[in-house]
Amino acid sequence: MKKMTAGELAKFLNAKIAGDGSALLSGIAAPEDAGAEDLIYVEATKHKQRAEASAARCVIVAEEIELQGKTTLAVARPKLAFAKAAERLLEPSPIATGRHATAVIDASAKLGGGVAVGPYAVIEADTTIGANTQIGAFCYIGRGAKIGESCQLFPRVNLYAGAKLGNRVIVHSGAVIGGDGFGYVYGDGNYAKFPQVGAVEIGDDVEIGNNTTIARGSLGKTRIDRGVKLDNLVHIAHNVHIGEHTIIAAQTGVSGSSEIGDHVVIGGQVGIADHCTIESGSIVGAQAGIPTGKKIRAGEVVWGTPARPLARFKKQYVWFERLPELAERLRKIEEKNK
Amino acid sequence: MKKMTAGELAKFLNAKIAGDGSALLSGIAAPEDAGAEDLIYVEATKHKQRAEASAARCVIVAEEIELQGKTTLAVARPKLAFAKAAERLLEPSPIATGRHATAVIDASAKLGGGVAVGPYAVIEADTTIGANTQIGAFCYIGRGAKIGESCQLFPRVNLYAGAKLGNRVIVHSGAVIGGDGFGYVYGDGNYAKFPQVGAVEIGDDVEIGNNTTIARGSLGKTRIDRGVKLDNLVHIAHNVHIGEHTIIAAQTGVSGSSEIGDHVVIGGQVGIADHCTIESGSIVGAQAGIPTGKKIRAGEVVWGTPARPLARFKKQYVWFERLPELAERLRKIEEKNK
Amino acid sequence: MKKMTAGELAKFLNAKIAGDGSALLSGIAAPEDAGAEDLIYVEATKHKQRAEASAARCVIVAEEIELQGKTTLAVARPKLAFAKAAERLLEPSPIATGRHATAVIDASAKLGGGVAVGPYAVIEADTTIGANTQIGAFCYIGRGAKIGESCQLFPRVNLYAGAKLGNRVIVHSGAVIGGDGFGYVYGDGNYAKFPQVGAVEIGDDVEIGNNTTIARGSLGKTRIDRGVKLDNLVHIAHNVHIGEHTIIAAQTGVSGSSEIGDHVVIGGQVGIADHCTIESGSIVGAQAGIPTGKKIRAGEVVWGTPARPLARFKKQYVWFERLPELAERLRKIEEKNK
Repeated sequence: MKKMTAGELAKFLNAKIAGDGSALLSGIAAPEDAGAEDLIYVEATKHKQRAEASAARCVIVAEEIELQGKTTLAVARPKLAFAKAAERLLEPSPIATGRHATAVIDASAKLGGGVAVGPYAVIEADTTIGANTQIGAFCYIGRGAKIGESCQLFPRVNLYAGAKLGNRVIVHSGAVIGGDGFGYVYGDGNYAKFPQVGAVEIGDDVEIGNNTTIARGSLGKTRIDRGVKLDNLVHIAHNVHIGEHTIIAAQTGVSGSSEIGDHVVIGGQVGIADHCTIESGSIVGAQAGIPTGKKIRAGEVVWGTPARPLARFKKQYVWFERLPELAERLRKIEEKNK
Repeated sequence: MKKMTAGELAKFLNAKIAGDGSALLSGIAAPEDAGAEDLIYVEATKHKQRAEASAARCVIVAEEIELQGKTTLAVARPKLAFAKAAERLLEPSPIATGRHATAVIDASAKLGGGVAVGPYAVIEADTTIGANTQIGAFCYIGRGAKIGESCQLFPRVNLYAGAKLGNRVIVHSGAVIGGDGFGYVYGDGNYAKFPQVGAVEIGDDVEIGNNTTIARGSLGKTRIDRGVKLDNLVHIAHNVHIGEHTIIAAQTGVSGSSEIGDHVVIGGQVGIADHCTIESGSIVGAQAGIPTGKKIRAGEVVWGTPARPLARFKKQYVWFERLPELAERLRKIEEKNK
Repeated sequence: MKKMTAGELAKFLNAKIAGDGSALLSGIAAPEDAGAEDLIYVEATKHKQRAEASAARCVIVAEEIELQGKTTLAVARPKLAFAKAAERLLEPSPIATGRHATAVIDASAKLGGGVAVGPYAVIEADTTIGANTQIGAFCYIGRGAKIGESCQLFPRVNLYAGAKLGNRVIVHSGAVIGGDGFGYVYGDGNYAKFPQVGAVEIGDDVEIGNNTTIARGSLGKTRIDRGVKLDNLVHIAHNVHIGEHTIIAAQTGVSGSSEIGDHVVIGGQVGIADHCTIESGSIVGAQAGIPTGKKIRAGEVVWGTPARPLARFKKQYVWFERLPELAERLRKIEEKNK
């Protein structure tokens, strides 16, 4: 942990400070777990008491919140400020340091300055790894793969041959990038494998969760653009394109050749069939199912299987809940009309 | 396999024996696959014939079942007795023996007596591993992680830094414990990473399936209590708490900060959103979806998306099935009322 | 890449050639990405223009399609022909070559001629690996496992002890075969582990996707027959049987003891509960849920949860969409009948 004073932090965050500016900060915590030097934050007045009861001396607060006996740093968006402060205060332990003697690095691999490689990593021929990238233990970097600068590959990440990552990409343990897409042609009673030889390109600042799988294009490319965040156990099929700053929660699957716009928010366990278009700014509720070829329009909020606008779903669902009552009312009218 | 006689086994199981107590047992099997020395079991009278046709000499039976030509061990709960007998009769091959020369074990790691470590395992600094724990090949034990006694980590398990396991925990290949939770703060057009620096604690006698992922707390803790069983490809998010002896089937996901009680049974592919409360003793049917913040009461049985009590769902569903008929009946009445 | 002429390829595919038979081919591509020597294909007249605009000189076409300025190879099934041509034209880089010095291969393991083993693979005792099989880096082949000829195990595949693979099986990174099934017996307030000691057998020409998990039988066997294709993150439980040439899309789960026929097509995120029977030639739509013990008849097309025939679902669903309208119509009739 790096130490800084409340005053220094206020300056860094452009926050309005009240109280003791010399209070030392050396970490972050939830209010209940915090020690005196841990930074905490409060966004809503209802959490005021949690903060006041905390051992933390210094609190990031929303502008309208006043706290007794604390040094407060008032900002417009406390959670965002807390995240930024955390990045300054925390020094995460490195995924790897130096190049471990057991790493198998092909002579033709080009490693930038400050690249660290953990034990038993394997880096195949004709690969390029940008400066200050960390490659964890057991990572497998296939032939011809290209990784940008300042990336973090946690232990046990696989890149198939030719996969490309931008800069500052974080890939978590168990993720696999560039595996074969699921494409076959049926003929003569069995399935022939359709060639899976396309590319996969991951943009800058993307984060990819544990055990998530991203297939290469069959022909053409799979593309995950800048700033996309994928949770754990997500499946992205061949030739999918995901636009900038889209986030996808755990266990969602996107089938072949679907096109997802920028700033889309997709819940967990969503299924998106092939050749769908999910336009920018739309929101897809958890467990929704989007059938083949369907388009979700920009800014729409959808839910259910097959997915439809949330407002419409709610109106229908109210009556689904009341179906036994509807049926009974119908029976009574029928009685009268006999 | 250890050998024992039917008589010895009867004593161990506190079973009522009939037939030859000297019959030797050296394994277990399904009735159809069993050899003479394999133990089998029958719970229901309808499976009597399968048992009688088996080559097995010795059968664990429910108290009311009599078999011709077999040595029978009668107990109240045959399947449970069979499971206990199997534990005695089987000698599973160890996941690792000794400490393989290729394992990379940091000098500061504290390994208890009888700890076995397979080839190419990596054990980082400041870790503690309890007596008789087995660490399979390619396991990665991150800095500061703590593992109890008599645990079994199958080949290729990842513990992120600081993860804690109790005693007798079984973790299967591909599982990842302690990865970053999926938390971001949106601001200035992109997502800033919310700090994911909390803890993850797994209790005694927990079993975790292949390729399952359990995130650390963002702040605070993710806790999986004693006796919990998680199937394959399950996702447990940051700050979730799962109570004792709860079981969760494959591909289920539990989102951030949800609270699951003791002795809950959760089917496969269930989606539990964030901040839900699933009280003790409840049952959640397969593929159910539980929306953000929802509470399932103790002992309730729920189904569907959004999840509701099974009995209620069934009543509604009957009419969903009959919707075309309802519509036709309504049309006829309208006709009459023209 | 191997080079061949359009004429040689026409002969191999039994295609009707028009144009320059001496045109050289050295690869494959999508029309937009192709160079002059890349083979492309067109199945439908609507894609004619894409092909004509391509730099590719040689195109596989459906019999009714004529292209200006190209060498065309006309066949009945262009996509299938393209897949077969790709197999001839492409020379995929090998997963491993030779036996890497760092591979830990037990002295009792029997490796056929031409077996290649990548860095840091671990091959345990009493294993058998057929001729020309490639074992990638970090693969773990458990004690007694048996792998056929010409298999491809991409880096980081786990076979638990005793798992059996046929010939020409392809297993992708992160897949786990033969893990313990999810079986417990409840008693005395907690779950005792039911023995998970059965077998797992994978037939010839099966392909298994990234991070997919296939459990061994508890007693008895899990069997995946010849020609089956499993996508990524699929879960196959203990004692399941999947018939020949069945394909299962990503994130689908099949629970214990379910029986799936031949040539079944199962979409993504489908949940099949335990003891189901999915007869040959049936089709299960994405996200469908099939309850315990249910039978889907041969050739049926089902959808939804609980799954029902697609035609029936559509009729019901039309009225679900119109529920608010139905309720309003009912209200009006009630008004009249007051």
